[in-house]
Amino acid sequence: MIDRLAEKIREKNAPVVVGLDPMPAYLPPQLLREAVKEHGETLKAAGEAIYAYNCGLIDAVHDLVPAVKPQIAMYEQYGLPGIEAFQKTIAYAHKKEMLVIGDVKRGDIGSTSKAYAAAHLGKIAVGEKTFCPFDEDFATVNPYLGSDGVLPFVDMCNEEKKGIFVLVKTSNPSSGEFQDRIADGRPMYEWVAEKVAAWGETAMGHGFSRVGAVAGATYPEMGVRLRALMPKAMILVPGYGAQGGTAKDLAGFFTKDGEGAIVNSSRGIIAAYKQEKYASYGAEGYAEAARAAVSDMLADIRGVLGG
Amino acid sequence: MIDRLAEKIREKNAPVVVGLDPMPAYLPPQLLREAVKEHGETLKAAGEAIYAYNCGLIDAVHDLVPAVKPQIAMYEQYGLPGIEAFQKTIAYAHKKEMLVIGDVKRGDIGSTSKAYAAAHLGKIAVGEKTFCPFDEDFATVNPYLGSDGVLPFVDMCNEEKKGIFVLVKTSNPSSGEFQDRIADGRPMYEWVAEKVAAWGETAMGHGFSRVGAVAGATYPEMGVRLRALMPKAMILVPGYGAQGGTAKDLAGFFTKDGEGAIVNSSRGIIAAYKQEKYASYGAEGYAEAARAAVSDMLADIRGVLGG
Repeated sequence: MIDRLAEKIREKNAPVVVGLDPMPAYLPPQLLREAVKEHGETLKAAGEAIYAYNCGLIDAVHDLVPAVKPQIAMYEQYGLPGIEAFQKTIAYAHKKEMLVIGDVKRGDIGSTSKAYAAAHLGKIAVGEKTFCPFDEDFATVNPYLGSDGVLPFVDMCNEEKKGIFVLVKTSNPSSGEFQDRIADGRPMYEWVAEKVAAWGETAMGHGFSRVGAVAGATYPEMGVRLRALMPKAMILVPGYGAQGGTAKDLAGFFTKDGEGAIVNSSRGIIAAYKQEKYASYGAEGYAEAARAAVSDMLADIRGVLGG
Repeated sequence: MIDRLAEKIREKNAPVVVGLDPMPAYLPPQLLREAVKEHGETLKAAGEAIYAYNCGLIDAVHDLVPAVKPQIAMYEQYGLPGIEAFQKTIAYAHKKEMLVIGDVKRGDIGSTSKAYAAAHLGKIAVGEKTFCPFDEDFATVNPYLGSDGVLPFVDMCNEEKKGIFVLVKTSNPSSGEFQDRIADGRPMYEWVAEKVAAWGETAMGHGFSRVGAVAGATYPEMGVRLRALMPKAMILVPGYGAQGGTAKDLAGFFTKDGEGAIVNSSRGIIAAYKQEKYASYGAEGYAEAARAAVSDMLADIRGVLGG
């Protein structure tokens, strides 16, 4: 799957993933209104509105970018109907030939991590039948529990030819509280990066590893260093746009061939219609606004990569 | 809710929580057989079998211990029907007047952590109606992303009078890879513990804080130190029994009054019927075996605490 992702990025000249984080405030009002008309003011209505929102977004951007990244928290908060929307969104993205990065930030130990890996990347048996519960292509993983927590995901990646992105240096302001602490002469995130590289050695695709990393665009100086520490890792880079990262900040995350990174934007795309720049599309034109914002983002990033 | 937990521990003289981690291998075969008869070999059958298993366990132990701790990974791996079983288990435990610690190990940043907090501890609005999606009393939280990740949970705890347990030092063998790294003269887990104490100051109940910690029984020497660093935190202690922690190892996690900690056991209780010691109960008697194992665990721990 990591090979397919690298290939699709090349093919579309688009190292970009659209984050499907349907915050209640982003949802175009007409979609909720319609869903409420059918299902009343229920969690089911919220789930259906979110799914409709996502389908519109996927239809609008699927030819431009290789992947979407649904953030499961935004679905989980609507209970079972929300999680059903997460599941249906994944299936719809696959139907439109997009890859899906489940931004689930799971992580536990041993058999528990294995259960998460089965849920998001693998299969589960009931009697003689097997099921793919959520069937993402990639999942994000939290490393705080160490190898016991991550290796069950790595095993699943090898078994199912899927991939993970391990949190190394996150894009938020307080990420330094623990991640930047100098331990034995190096910041903690470098120790995590080194482990990511080691785990990744056991899970190589052609070129890149099935074990990737998350590193925030808001810390560009760290990009160069992390790129060097994890030469085979695809780096998922959040923080572009709304969080303050610019295209210039991204260069260090890429290899010298301009590969090996994929930049996420969520709000800047899915809620583009709320920005002054794209306001003329209106809430009804949220999908076209998203397409325009993706095109602008691609031009911005290509400019820096010289692509 | 932290006050209710402390009170229930006192009332029952039972600083113990039963981990509801329904690994496929633990499930008494008759329960799956019955569910498959009704629903076929489906995820729904697995979910129903897990729910029946949990109801039996809750019926058997609800008068002995204050709380259960369902591990959501074991449910998530069965997709939506699995997560429905998680939700129904919480409701059933509440009906039997037990408190519920959702072992979800969630953690993200800002509005995303807020969404997780709403899902597990709070409410969500759809139009003019509000819903409690999962409605646990407590949730476990991963601290790797720093204050941005944890504070939205703390706010929700204060708003809804609920609680969290932040991972500080986990019970698994490789937990030291990152957690034990010496940073600025102290192991990383101590820096996390100090933050837990600081976050906790802003969320006090009567006696204990709504912000607790997770620290593994498998590292007893650290218990004393962590107890001192987080004087107001309730410590959730996994690793007793199957993972190798003994009652003697637990003493340091408690205050000198024998309070402030709650010890989890999962496999040792819910799969007791598979141990030689309780084998005479058989799979049909899994719930009675669990009750016997809880009684033995309580005697073991009370012996050490002198209760």
